[in-house]
Amino acid sequence: MSFLYTGDKSYEFEIGNNLLDIIQSHNLGMESPCGGKGFCGKCKIKILSGDINDLTKEELKFLTKEEIDKNIRLSCLVYPKGDLYLEFLDTKSVNHKILVDGYMPEFKKNPILNKSTYGLEKPTLENNLSYEEILINTINCDLKDNYEILKDIPNLFEKNKFTKVCLGEKLIGLECDDTKDKLYSIAVDIGTTTVVCSLIDIKNQFEVSSESEINPQKEYGLDVLSRINFIKTKENGLDILHKSIIECINKLIEKLCENNNVNRENIYEVSIAANTTMMHILLNINPISIGKSPYAPVFVKSKNIDAKSLGIKISNFGKVYLLPGVSSYIGADIVAGVCVCDLKNVNKNVLFIDIGTNGEMVLSKKGKLVSCSCAAGPALEGMNISCGMRAGDGAIENVKIEESINLKVIGDKIPSGICGSGMVDAISELVRLNLIGKTGRIVKKEKILEDDKLGYLSECIIDENKKRRFVLTKNTKEIAITQEDIRQVQLAKGAILSGIYALADKVGIKITDLDEVIIAGQFGKHLSIDSLVGVGIIPKELKEKIKYIGNSSKTGAIMSLLSKDIRESMDNIASDIDYFELSTKDGYERLFTNCLKF
Amino acid sequence: MSFLYTGDKSYEFEIGNNLLDIIQSHNLGMESPCGGKGFCGKCKIKILSGDINDLTKEELKFLTKEEIDKNIRLSCLVYPKGDLYLEFLDTKSVNHKILVDGYMPEFKKNPILNKSTYGLEKPTLENNLSYEEILINTINCDLKDNYEILKDIPNLFEKNKFTKVCLGEKLIGLECDDTKDKLYSIAVDIGTTTVVCSLIDIKNQFEVSSESEINPQKEYGLDVLSRINFIKTKENGLDILHKSIIECINKLIEKLCENNNVNRENIYEVSIAANTTMMHILLNINPISIGKSPYAPVFVKSKNIDAKSLGIKISNFGKVYLLPGVSSYIGADIVAGVCVCDLKNVNKNVLFIDIGTNGEMVLSKKGKLVSCSCAAGPALEGMNISCGMRAGDGAIENVKIEESINLKVIGDKIPSGICGSGMVDAISELVRLNLIGKTGRIVKKEKILEDDKLGYLSECIIDENKKRRFVLTKNTKEIAITQEDIRQVQLAKGAILSGIYALADKVGIKITDLDEVIIAGQFGKHLSIDSLVGVGIIPKELKEKIKYIGNSSKTGAIMSLLSKDIRESMDNIASDIDYFELSTKDGYERLFTNCLKF
Repeated sequence: MSFLYTGDKSYEFEIGNNLLDIIQSHNLGMESPCGGKGFCGKCKIKILSGDINDLTKEELKFLTKEEIDKNIRLSCLVYPKGDLYLEFLDTKSVNHKILVDGYMPEFKKNPILNKSTYGLEKPTLENNLSYEEILINTINCDLKDNYEILKDIPNLFEKNKFTKVCLGEKLIGLECDDTKDKLYSIAVDIGTTTVVCSLIDIKNQFEVSSESEINPQKEYGLDVLSRINFIKTKENGLDILHKSIIECINKLIEKLCENNNVNRENIYEVSIAANTTMMHILLNINPISIGKSPYAPVFVKSKNIDAKSLGIKISNFGKVYLLPGVSSYIGADIVAGVCVCDLKNVNKNVLFIDIGTNGEMVLSKKGKLVSCSCAAGPALEGMNISCGMRAGDGAIENVKIEESINLKVIGDKIPSGICGSGMVDAISELVRLNLIGKTGRIVKKEKILEDDKLGYLSECIIDENKKRRFVLTKNTKEIAITQEDIRQVQLAKGAILSGIYALADKVGIKITDLDEVIIAGQFGKHLSIDSLVGVGIIPKELKEKIKYIGNSSKTGAIMSLLSKDIRESMDNIASDIDYFELSTKDGYERLFTNCLKF
Repeated sequence: MSFLYTGDKSYEFEIGNNLLDIIQSHNLGMESPCGGKGFCGKCKIKILSGDINDLTKEELKFLTKEEIDKNIRLSCLVYPKGDLYLEFLDTKSVNHKILVDGYMPEFKKNPILNKSTYGLEKPTLENNLSYEEILINTINCDLKDNYEILKDIPNLFEKNKFTKVCLGEKLIGLECDDTKDKLYSIAVDIGTTTVVCSLIDIKNQFEVSSESEINPQKEYGLDVLSRINFIKTKENGLDILHKSIIECINKLIEKLCENNNVNRENIYEVSIAANTTMMHILLNINPISIGKSPYAPVFVKSKNIDAKSLGIKISNFGKVYLLPGVSSYIGADIVAGVCVCDLKNVNKNVLFIDIGTNGEMVLSKKGKLVSCSCAAGPALEGMNISCGMRAGDGAIENVKIEESINLKVIGDKIPSGICGSGMVDAISELVRLNLIGKTGRIVKKEKILEDDKLGYLSECIIDENKKRRFVLTKNTKEIAITQEDIRQVQLAKGAILSGIYALADKVGIKITDLDEVIIAGQFGKHLSIDSLVGVGIIPKELKEKIKYIGNSSKTGAIMSLLSKDIRESMDNIASDIDYFELSTKDGYERLFTNCLKF
């Protein structure tokens, strides 16, 4: 046995293994995106002293002359021949920023999922122990009540080595042979509209790949309440919705496994962020109570459930971890976002908003967290709009009304409809040009004729069957914004804006006391700050303080896989967030009515 | 709220309930075989003072004049109207002897299974907790990872009361309404030959009824080794045996439920005693390693497994408890027996023998426990015998060779075969009459002719095809004992007797130092001490020290349901019993050969 020394610590190792393996076997946190194959050059380390092999050709590709002079090497290509003294180059290498779809803060990686490999002694006539006892003595933990492990013991004893799989200290399964290198999990964000799955390499601590699908439950209702209604009115409704989301997740996992050459038996955990209703349906638990006063959910706490019992196809003994939520309308997706933004530890006033069918918001007054939720309706997602459509190919996503009407269409196609961001853009422009009054009414054609600034605007306004609309384009197909469309957006805007005011009021600050406004969710991707403020979803005083962080729900799910501390802190956040039911606020109706004005 | 005072303790109660309910709600251990209906007269109690209803007509049926003078009442018929002082009549009433099929010692009843009932507060807009949190606050324990309970929460909240079901402190399930009165378990003894199930009323702490069936695995092999061989050679062999025992247990449970008007949803635990191979097959765990050197079992420790995962049909969240065993050939059935006899705490030398296909024995040298097992073969159970049959109708179970040959036949039928006890009886008689020599050979017809004490014996000896047999009867059908039959019994006798000597030798005592020999198992039922000693299965020096205790395996299973202390002490016994592999003893072959002699 030789020893590896670093700082004031020492670690035993066997000669013959490469340095990266030794470092990783002691969980010292060295990363190797290429898996120790010498392709990525990320596992640099400084050798202080010790007998090792000479510099290899492969290393020359990744090391500068300066680094070579300093005795820096790639640990995957170093084979120590005896005791070794070394220095880690940058502690940040352990806590680096993972590139994902959105912002991810730096945090200490200590995944809860872990593996260890053991040799197995066989019983003898003299040492006539049961297989179970030999196992217990080897791994030093009891199997007593785990029937699945018990059943598998005879297979284990056909080999000489086995691998223990644990969540923290808790044994979840045993595998034949040494499988230490294969350790994966899946992070899932179940949005009402979109489901995203990420394959996470736990051993090497990075996101391998990500896939998404439209939430198949969409077929049974666009928003949470209509899905609850489906469950209430349709026999087997819950079962139908439950099965559709499980199938969707399984399909995404299968895709990730195929594309990345990973066996699904080597996926041991699925971590899930979602709103409270999606969580209920995922577990096949009736969410009806969420839909009616007093809006009590069946559960919000974090959960660890056998993947098998949900029908999620990963390792036979894999688990599903559900992030904690706060209430019926502040779910685990929001807790994830608050954790990603570290709102509990900020020393300023920060507003976090996830704009979607529901507008959920959390205000952190220097760490004190209050939340509320408002029913924005599906308009901001392009639904319930006469020419509305999802943000896909052919959707108008940006509108500028200048010398002519300039439309930006997703995929540069001929426009076939308008998505949420296009709607908000268009209405923002109509407001700017006074084509919409404070109350939201499209002005009369005659009134424009008096002073048509751009010369063509009056032609765009059409009155038909006592209804008025503003035509954006007639190119092959007319796409227009109707008075009713504007009402829908206006209701969404009123709901969100009044929520912001009510929340600020609740914690006793003014809107102008806010230091930062963080916008999460898919919606932010396509929406300009100008339009958000232009329509009045966010007060214009906050314009300079707006930031986007992307899909923080998915990011939170990933972080929970890479750090057990994060799980603990999410539980704390969930219980610290106060939930404030808007409808119980004095004078809320008046506030809402005021907020409807453009 | 009023108070009930007894000794120096007091207990709160609500006026309106009867005294039995109050006593039982505080787990003070009062029994009521009739369930508080006033039919059994068992719940007598002495009222010292307090305002209660007058003596009822029903009570007069059960109380003597003397008792009435002493203010003794039936607690199920007493309704306190305020504070009450009382005295329990006999602390033994809590620890009485249950009448079962065999000896059961007295022990303190503290069943691990228990229920408590709670009221349920509904969430409100102001107190907007999740159902889960309300439950946790009510029952004061976490549900976190129990998916089945979680799924059931919405149903629970449709009622105002619910009942918690626990094993010790561990929550296993929640039920709508108050179900406290319905609390049953099943004790099972899986013998290689017979399966016995007992329905136990846990609330009132007594055995309700018992049912048995031939072990259906018999079809696939008469003894443990032939069943292991079946598993080894037949595809799906393990599955076939596993399913057959599960079906058998389910059938017996169904019978018990029907006959006793118990709903199987109200059975929450099944406690199982059996030999190690039977346990493996029960859990669908391959027992092949038991059948070959070094004879290591996969498991022997006690287990708690979901009944559902085994396919045993009781409550949805019911559990199966497996008693602990020692080794491949000293199973949980023997540990149960050692516990029933309290061999760990005796201050003498006691030998415990379970005679069956295997002879298992444990010797307690003043509490120090050593065990061994010997392959007796199926002869003592009437198998592998030319005219052999099970101990059922038509089987000769007793043989006396006097003026004529007197046969006792089970069911007083015309004899159709001979069972194990009949065989042992017959051979014992043949030995007594010197019709069998020391080596086991039947003497020649000619030699008897010289001195035929009873005048007809020589006619009974027949030589045919170079084989000799002794005919017991020719009534409608010849039933005889062949030379080969005698060899089979001789092998069994040799195995058991040599085991006794080897064990005594191992702990350093002589046979004559034994103070007691306890014989367990079905076999004992039909077998006289005279014959046991006559054949030489037990040395004749021990004749006066022999006791039968009946099916101590079943008794142990019942005790484990009625006392959590018993479970703990069984675990201790299992780990304290030393297992001694006979074949490793120096000179065992010679000892065995000596023990073959009659």
